[in-house]
Amino acid sequence: MPLITLLTDFGLSDTYVGQMKGAILGIAPSVHLVDLTHAVPPQDVLAGAFLLWTAVEPFGRDAVHLAVVDPGVGSSRRALAMRCARGDIFVGPDNGLLMPAVERLGGLSCAVELSDSRYWRPALSSTFHGRDIFGPVAAHLANGIELEALGPRTEHFVPLELPQRDGLAGEIVHVDTYGNLVTNIPGDVLPPHYIVHIRGCAVRPAANYAAVAPGDLLALVGSAGLLEISARDTSAARVLEARRGARLTVEAAAA
Amino acid sequence: MPLITLLTDFGLSDTYVGQMKGAILGIAPSVHLVDLTHAVPPQDVLAGAFLLWTAVEPFGRDAVHLAVVDPGVGSSRRALAMRCARGDIFVGPDNGLLMPAVERLGGLSCAVELSDSRYWRPALSSTFHGRDIFGPVAAHLANGIELEALGPRTEHFVPLELPQRDGLAGEIVHVDTYGNLVTNIPGDVLPPHYIVHIRGCAVRPAANYAAVAPGDLLALVGSAGLLEISARDTSAARVLEARRGARLTVEAAAA
Amino acid sequence: MPLITLLTDFGLSDTYVGQMKGAILGIAPSVHLVDLTHAVPPQDVLAGAFLLWTAVEPFGRDAVHLAVVDPGVGSSRRALAMRCARGDIFVGPDNGLLMPAVERLGGLSCAVELSDSRYWRPALSSTFHGRDIFGPVAAHLANGIELEALGPRTEHFVPLELPQRDGLAGEIVHVDTYGNLVTNIPGDVLPPHYIVHIRGCAVRPAANYAAVAPGDLLALVGSAGLLEISARDTSAARVLEARRGARLTVEAAAA
Repeated sequence: MPLITLLTDFGLSDTYVGQMKGAILGIAPSVHLVDLTHAVPPQDVLAGAFLLWTAVEPFGRDAVHLAVVDPGVGSSRRALAMRCARGDIFVGPDNGLLMPAVERLGGLSCAVELSDSRYWRPALSSTFHGRDIFGPVAAHLANGIELEALGPRTEHFVPLELPQRDGLAGEIVHVDTYGNLVTNIPGDVLPPHYIVHIRGCAVRPAANYAAVAPGDLLALVGSAGLLEISARDTSAARVLEARRGARLTVEAAAA
Repeated sequence: MPLITLLTDFGLSDTYVGQMKGAILGIAPSVHLVDLTHAVPPQDVLAGAFLLWTAVEPFGRDAVHLAVVDPGVGSSRRALAMRCARGDIFVGPDNGLLMPAVERLGGLSCAVELSDSRYWRPALSSTFHGRDIFGPVAAHLANGIELEALGPRTEHFVPLELPQRDGLAGEIVHVDTYGNLVTNIPGDVLPPHYIVHIRGCAVRPAANYAAVAPGDLLALVGSAGLLEISARDTSAARVLEARRGARLTVEAAAA
Repeated sequence: MPLITLLTDFGLSDTYVGQMKGAILGIAPSVHLVDLTHAVPPQDVLAGAFLLWTAVEPFGRDAVHLAVVDPGVGSSRRALAMRCARGDIFVGPDNGLLMPAVERLGGLSCAVELSDSRYWRPALSSTFHGRDIFGPVAAHLANGIELEALGPRTEHFVPLELPQRDGLAGEIVHVDTYGNLVTNIPGDVLPPHYIVHIRGCAVRPAANYAAVAPGDLLALVGSAGLLEISARDTSAARVLEARRGARLTVEAAAA
């Protein structure tokens, strides 16, 4: 059963997600649709790129990942479909949104610019290419059409400026539902013993949430493989009054 | 694969949507369920009718559209199933909720009052006909049962009072996730060149969001075919402090 | 078509639900996934248990119910799969979350501790067993694997402390999207005529919302079979300034 994942900033209060699904199912009636999230902050390409990056790994190589955070809709920004080394296909705007996820799955194998309007919706709006271009193209790809049929190959893309880390100095790149502070420091660069310094606090690692007292802070490597700061049974973001962009440093500690 | 779309004011914090889907899948196990939205403001039939109207067009003619915004549940308000000219079927309460969407798809072809309890859940609650009547009936329709089997034909319906426009004077009928202000002025009645007057501001049209500077207001015909007021990369609702019901006028301008 | 229902405290702003679905669909590609809710308040096992209890009845006996509200993730808390008397299977942590729903469907028939890691994701995080253990196990169960293959049988479980009622004195156990106040007093213990006393108000029963004037309070037996306090076309929680835990008493009244 072909599978399309969906990630957008459409929210769930409107029918935009539903309309996009209607356009897809009109072309690929038996495809499996899986929502990754539709709560990307409006027009926030960087947040969308991070969330897409977190989500794609558990899916199989035959998935089509449709991602739309698209402040340039209707302008001259290009529309893309990309195959990554693992085999998954990505569809979305050329604004950097897809790149971290493509990198995570082995890097780019082939990309095309979506230019053949036979695979689009006949009537094109200037504000909703999720329904009118990206959705229909993803549906055709789920149906098995070749990437190369959709338009000419391309090798140059709008880059995405990711928050940089400097060794063990990094920043909060995402605050999740629980108030966990997700950093851009990969777990595999952490020293065996360490302390995290953030907003004047020194936070020690723990094996899991239940290993500290309720309300206490802890550091651990979260499910995305990144260092996270949490607070047991409460929100670390609230305890530390920390938001996306907050800086932190990791210090090696004695055993 | 038969398809049922779902639009309600149930929200996603409770399990009401899940219960309704359980009732459907018990009858039609292989149906495709597509959420349009469940964030209709509680009991707001007019908002639900607008959102349903925005959503149905991209679906195919074999869809069953199940819509439940139902402040009269358990009272003498009637339950309906309607076939529209395009072929889609609608199921929901007789309170005007379904009418604009039915009109959009070519108008009414046939309607019945849901009276045959063999197609309902055996035990009926007085507060949740989405699970107990509308869901099961939609499932039977997706399974191919004839509309006419569900109850007697009917031709009189509770009307819906839609916000009227007077030529080029209209109002905001919906504020979307992005803060776009959706009006009740169809794009095809707009003069070739125009200015929109709303809350003391004069807003000029643009081809797309990126055609104006960040934060600036613009007017364009949105994905529903209606005039919308937007602000690039931010919320026009916030910029203009405008809500549903705000009045606007369109003035023809020189080229 | 096998069916897995999903109930978590993951929220919809992250991709956690999507990742868990990816892990499931990698094992059981044609399973039907139905979200019950992902808006359980973070770490609130009691709220999750109540919501799961409300949701399972409309599904068929071949459903697998996957529930994850799991503050003890990564610690020594056990992971469980349970078959109930009706036949449905439950998968989740051993913290009481599953018990009310299992009881509702006839009580426990068989339970095992999830210990055979062949049915898990190869790489295990310490924070996300929904993706790494519970999801994959639910997928294997949907594929038809025997419960007994997943680990050793167990008969002792972490209990859940439910809000007790004393005859006709009980409390609000849930406030729903509409502001309806759901109590822990079953409809079938109510006297034929009664008055509800809550926060200094005396609330009389009505057959349905439309039977009282807009804004007025009423009591009725809701869709879960429990006594509820509502206000027509508005929120009883707001009218009464009542929250979860608020106490109420039911008094028998003259006809």
